[in-house]
Amino acid sequence: MNDCLFCKIVAGKIPAEKVYEDKDVLAFLDISPVNPGHTLVLPKEHFETYLDTPDDLLADLSKKIKKIAHGVKEATEAEGINIMVNAHKAAGQVIPHLHTHIIPRYISDGFKHWVGTKSSEKKSKRLAEKIKKEIK
Amino acid sequence: MNDCLFCKIVAGKIPAEKVYEDKDVLAFLDISPVNPGHTLVLPKEHFETYLDTPDDLLADLSKKIKKIAHGVKEATEAEGINIMVNAHKAAGQVIPHLHTHIIPRYISDGFKHWVGTKSSEKKSKRLAEKIKKEIK
Repeated sequence: MNDCLFCKIVAGKIPAEKVYEDKDVLAFLDISPVNPGHTLVLPKEHFETYLDTPDDLLADLSKKIKKIAHGVKEATEAEGINIMVNAHKAAGQVIPHLHTHIIPRYISDGFKHWVGTKSSEKKSKRLAEKIKKEIK
Repeated sequence: MNDCLFCKIVAGKIPAEKVYEDKDVLAFLDISPVNPGHTLVLPKEHFETYLDTPDDLLADLSKKIKKIAHGVKEATEAEGINIMVNAHKAAGQVIPHLHTHIIPRYISDGFKHWVGTKSSEKKSKRLAEKIKKEIK
């Protein structure tokens, strides 16, 4: 897409610190890393979110994400890795071209995860039934 | 594995609010949801992290995660979805059996994302080279 920042990086019109590239997938360093080595992996073809990307492309990406995450972990000597996709603005997606964040993590880095709540058994049962019906 | 909580759920020894099940994959509600409908998707077979799970299983999971995420989004009327894997304790993994979090999100839910930092061009270039070498 003409006005998509990531499509411009794919097309070589905007520079990026690339760490992996093949005919379908590109990975480069996030310009605003949570920790050094924070990498974005994306399909070269433009799809807005994970939810509207073809299954075969997601499958291909999932394997390459593993390979790239291993490389990031080795190179950064990370103790853990987060692999995260934000789908839509409400989930923190800034660029509307599917990308997966690979974030190197350390016991002492101090990043907090969102805190869970309690849900009543009755509410959970009702919600599980509702979700089950919507999975097609 | 005998002492794995998720293996016990897979085996039916511990109850869970299941939303999806097939021969290889199980999904159920997180008992401590960040938002209602927070769902965990996992392979029935025990692998500790994303990084040591076979490629074909990751590929299969990636497609089912999409399907389940659509269902969660519809049922919860979410405005966005986070799809997140924590690999190793340092990345927030609590149960050492690969699981993907599907988290319904809303513009107004107030969850903050980790803030990025700036990295010098020189440092980024060096790090990108290092990562590139470690991707095998």
